[in-house]
Amino acid sequence: MAAVLRGSRYLVGRCCRNVDFAFVSTRSMASKTQVGFVGLGNMGNPMAKNLIKHGYPVIATDVFPESCKELQELGAQIVDNPAEVADKADRIITMLPSSPNVIDVYTGPNGILKKVKKGSLLIDSSTIDPAVSKDMAAAAEKMGAVFMDAPVSGGVGAASSGKLTFMVGGAEEEFTAAKELLSCMGANVVYCGQVGTGQAAKICNNMLLAIGMIGTSETMNLGIRLGLDPKLLAKILNMSSGRCWSSDTYNPVPGVMEGVPSGNNYQGGFGTQLMAKDLGLAQNTATNTKTPVPLGSLAHQIYRMMCARGYATKDFSSVFQFLREEEGAQ
Amino acid sequence: MAAVLRGSRYLVGRCCRNVDFAFVSTRSMASKTQVGFVGLGNMGNPMAKNLIKHGYPVIATDVFPESCKELQELGAQIVDNPAEVADKADRIITMLPSSPNVIDVYTGPNGILKKVKKGSLLIDSSTIDPAVSKDMAAAAEKMGAVFMDAPVSGGVGAASSGKLTFMVGGAEEEFTAAKELLSCMGANVVYCGQVGTGQAAKICNNMLLAIGMIGTSETMNLGIRLGLDPKLLAKILNMSSGRCWSSDTYNPVPGVMEGVPSGNNYQGGFGTQLMAKDLGLAQNTATNTKTPVPLGSLAHQIYRMMCARGYATKDFSSVFQFLREEEGAQ
Amino acid sequence: MAAVLRGSRYLVGRCCRNVDFAFVSTRSMASKTQVGFVGLGNMGNPMAKNLIKHGYPVIATDVFPESCKELQELGAQIVDNPAEVADKADRIITMLPSSPNVIDVYTGPNGILKKVKKGSLLIDSSTIDPAVSKDMAAAAEKMGAVFMDAPVSGGVGAASSGKLTFMVGGAEEEFTAAKELLSCMGANVVYCGQVGTGQAAKICNNMLLAIGMIGTSETMNLGIRLGLDPKLLAKILNMSSGRCWSSDTYNPVPGVMEGVPSGNNYQGGFGTQLMAKDLGLAQNTATNTKTPVPLGSLAHQIYRMMCARGYATKDFSSVFQFLREEEGAQ
Amino acid sequence: MAAVLRGSRYLVGRCCRNVDFAFVSTRSMASKTQVGFVGLGNMGNPMAKNLIKHGYPVIATDVFPESCKELQELGAQIVDNPAEVADKADRIITMLPSSPNVIDVYTGPNGILKKVKKGSLLIDSSTIDPAVSKDMAAAAEKMGAVFMDAPVSGGVGAASSGKLTFMVGGAEEEFTAAKELLSCMGANVVYCGQVGTGQAAKICNNMLLAIGMIGTSETMNLGIRLGLDPKLLAKILNMSSGRCWSSDTYNPVPGVMEGVPSGNNYQGGFGTQLMAKDLGLAQNTATNTKTPVPLGSLAHQIYRMMCARGYATKDFSSVFQFLREEEGAQ
Repeated sequence: MAAVLRGSRYLVGRCCRNVDFAFVSTRSMASKTQVGFVGLGNMGNPMAKNLIKHGYPVIATDVFPESCKELQELGAQIVDNPAEVADKADRIITMLPSSPNVIDVYTGPNGILKKVKKGSLLIDSSTIDPAVSKDMAAAAEKMGAVFMDAPVSGGVGAASSGKLTFMVGGAEEEFTAAKELLSCMGANVVYCGQVGTGQAAKICNNMLLAIGMIGTSETMNLGIRLGLDPKLLAKILNMSSGRCWSSDTYNPVPGVMEGVPSGNNYQGGFGTQLMAKDLGLAQNTATNTKTPVPLGSLAHQIYRMMCARGYATKDFSSVFQFLREEEGAQ
Repeated sequence: MAAVLRGSRYLVGRCCRNVDFAFVSTRSMASKTQVGFVGLGNMGNPMAKNLIKHGYPVIATDVFPESCKELQELGAQIVDNPAEVADKADRIITMLPSSPNVIDVYTGPNGILKKVKKGSLLIDSSTIDPAVSKDMAAAAEKMGAVFMDAPVSGGVGAASSGKLTFMVGGAEEEFTAAKELLSCMGANVVYCGQVGTGQAAKICNNMLLAIGMIGTSETMNLGIRLGLDPKLLAKILNMSSGRCWSSDTYNPVPGVMEGVPSGNNYQGGFGTQLMAKDLGLAQNTATNTKTPVPLGSLAHQIYRMMCARGYATKDFSSVFQFLREEEGAQ
Repeated sequence: MAAVLRGSRYLVGRCCRNVDFAFVSTRSMASKTQVGFVGLGNMGNPMAKNLIKHGYPVIATDVFPESCKELQELGAQIVDNPAEVADKADRIITMLPSSPNVIDVYTGPNGILKKVKKGSLLIDSSTIDPAVSKDMAAAAEKMGAVFMDAPVSGGVGAASSGKLTFMVGGAEEEFTAAKELLSCMGANVVYCGQVGTGQAAKICNNMLLAIGMIGTSETMNLGIRLGLDPKLLAKILNMSSGRCWSSDTYNPVPGVMEGVPSGNNYQGGFGTQLMAKDLGLAQNTATNTKTPVPLGSLAHQIYRMMCARGYATKDFSSVFQFLREEEGAQ
Repeated sequence: MAAVLRGSRYLVGRCCRNVDFAFVSTRSMASKTQVGFVGLGNMGNPMAKNLIKHGYPVIATDVFPESCKELQELGAQIVDNPAEVADKADRIITMLPSSPNVIDVYTGPNGILKKVKKGSLLIDSSTIDPAVSKDMAAAAEKMGAVFMDAPVSGGVGAASSGKLTFMVGGAEEEFTAAKELLSCMGANVVYCGQVGTGQAAKICNNMLLAIGMIGTSETMNLGIRLGLDPKLLAKILNMSSGRCWSSDTYNPVPGVMEGVPSGNNYQGGFGTQLMAKDLGLAQNTATNTKTPVPLGSLAHQIYRMMCARGYATKDFSSVFQFLREEEGAQ
């Protein structure tokens, strides 16, 4: 019956006109059949584990064989490359570092699309350029498969505890199928629109996050130098129009809040170089769409300068430290 | 008895060493004696009205006689200049456009300090450079009077409804006395620390507000151009780490929220030129304290460019409109 | 004999290991044999004319047939597409608006590489991403051809008078062959290094040019508002360390210099949208190489904002006008 | 006769209406009578020496007595404070670190204006806010004296060799008198206009200089990372529209030029903190005149960040080093 639903669904699917219905029925939804997983890094590994916890047989691969061991011990089947994953699973999740990796994993010589089954559901949770997501979706469609972008917000901790937020772009009719799997790994699964809008939402959020974090750091630093107590200043901002997530939930000033990286010498959290990467994506999409983003652009440059000055692996809230006067500096 | 308390308080008052206790008793606190008010503009006028509503006899002045008429009809006594106000009231509130006006009203030829009574409480609610507040406090102290800075957040609407927030700087022992009056005009009265910290808190909040507003506008514009629905994008940001007051309470995109200036062609609200003024103060204090504020500084420049391009009197959320492509532009 | 020289040259050519020497001799250098030209727009048209003036038979194409008429009347042979050009000429120059056009003209279904002869010299004078230049060079090498990037500085006037500057990247052994043709169209032909460095030099120059122009405009505007006479200020800058091409050769303030766009309501010259495009390329290469370019990035954003506000087709020195206060603005 | 000329000159002096002609004749111009000098720091000391070399008897003072020793040995008379200088000399030059020092030296309890003679010529070579220059001029005028601002460009080396450039603001009729003295210390003495325009010219030049230097550093760094040889890139820029003083005269990349601080680990030259100070002045004047200076403002912030990160005393061309990737950084 799922097959019927899926088949009928394609009748309205604007971008799926080449799909051969005879093959659609091969993708099983209701039962917990195998799910493929490509990319078992810091994020992918706990995500795949959560699929196993929810009872899904997982068939996985990674370019680094050692990354696969832990999952193998938990019962996952490990294969040599993405094409073999696609040969055995008709629902596949990919979690990769950047656009070139995604292009290779989907369209490379041993890529998913080499052996993808018609009707397969391909979900990419990497954070990449939305233009690449659109390219992958078009390539998948030619093979009769469906591609969705579903980048996450939340770090390794949220990946482990299954509390990620997924922002999903792609054919709306596929959203229920995608949500079934993503719900095993995340607390929120939000449908954003056509392919690429998941990436767009992720990129937009992180650009505003970076602006808010640098802005909060500048503001707290200025206030402290003007004689304000940091906790009091944070309290005032948080009851006023200066309030933002960086001021009330992840304050960058050591001692203002408990349990955030600023209280732990900016270790853990979301690294400066990862933020710089996301801001680079935001900049690229802004340039391509001729959209002025003056503060987003300057935020990108500031995180880039921080990477050049040794802050690459510190949490992105360390911009407070970067802007403060060094001890001994004039 | 209030006099006793006030006298004993001075024993610990670091900056009040020249006060002649014999004169302290002349300022009455418990009873509703006359309160002076200087500056009856868009903000000062409704503030003074609220004092009258709360039963305080008001003695007021303004450089524009016509600004005084309404208050006079409500029973206020109108005098010629600030010195005459100081001659008749030992608690005075000032609400003026900028630093030079404050300097003139306090230290000019017909200024408050020409006739101020010893022990008087002088509260300045103008938004000015904290360095000027400190200068006024020092000048007041020489005359045996107490100066506090108490700038407000909230616009004309909040002034009319008595819902302003006051951020107060000055001797902590005076805060209770100041709060008695300020509570008639505001919903929140927050003690911030030594003289100038009220201004510092106000300036810091508005700098972060400007950064958040421009950041939100850039982000919403970018997301829309990438194919996201504006309401959906706002919803995603507001449940994520991009959340800020400008995204969840005062969204700059027409149609996303009700009852904000973006829904009314950016009329009303907080004018771009007023924001530019506050950002100029933030820039000055940052320069004077050698504090880097890269985003705050760029925000200042953007609002300055907007003023040059005809946005001076539009609400500051019109930066969304400024960044969007003009119809017909390439 | 030229063929011999060319053949021997390849013995040291690091990146030309697949070339079949038997075919190298087919490219003629000393005699004025046919030269192909793809892209007959505002720049390409006068450039191709200069080749004809220097006695080269030209075989050309453009996506817009009407662009070819003038050249045809001058004796050029017009063909249908780039592949046909490559079928008939072993030296080809391309002059196209942007990276996607270049990719299509070289690697598309009717692209040059479909019919390119081994040993052909392909010179691209478009201003594009250096990474695309490298891709084209690699694709050309696979076909036994040599690709060089040779973007120009100088506008339509310099193209007409043969006074362009070419910045050339590619195998050094080919530079003499490239210079033979480029010298017909330009006054300076500069060898920059490996493939892509011509683009890099062009992009770097224009980024610094944009920074200098905006900086000069801000500075002149500030000086004027501080009471300085604009001509005097320009003179002082030009004898001091503030001197730059924008201050001493192309001053953006109307009335300071003769014969520049600022004296002609910013008509002619180098359009704001073209500068915005080049700054977008600079931003992309900076992002890809993780290079901080804070002023270059802000310059990009300012030209982007100007495009959004109706300045797209005005000369890029109109940033002086953009930053000045509008008449009637506050 | 000089006195006659000076007296008649005042008949057209718009801002000199309070001058008592009877006293004007007391200032001697043609003969080498005593010249006062206040501020014997790194710049003031060699400047005063050059006056002595030119045969002027110098009477000097400095807040640090040890700064006066060298000059005393050369025959200068050392007195206790600026008032005493003014008591004995009717031509005085001041060279001080910042606005507050200037205010104190002129209007403080032992300031010049306490004992200034009518008709005295007071020349301030400090780099300060032009608004302060105007205030000093107004204060001097009340005492019947003439104040001119004459900030310098050129560093300690130029001060020692008498090769400074002076930018002079003030009554045009006084310029000849000022030039007589300034020519002993500088190679160029430029009249800029009314009081404050000397400062304006200096501030404008240095703002554009800072923009050019950071822009050159970004550009050179980007080009190098794109594979260009730094010397070749500098050569290309210098023959193109990217040319500026920082690229052709003071290149910030080690090895590109001889005899500049970049070749000496950025020692000597013009310190980053001094540039940050001048940019702070530019920012203040821009804020006060409501002039948008986006690049100037960001340049200020970058130099401010550099000061916070340990670059305060390095030459301002070290921004190239600041923007480059640290060894070992990602």
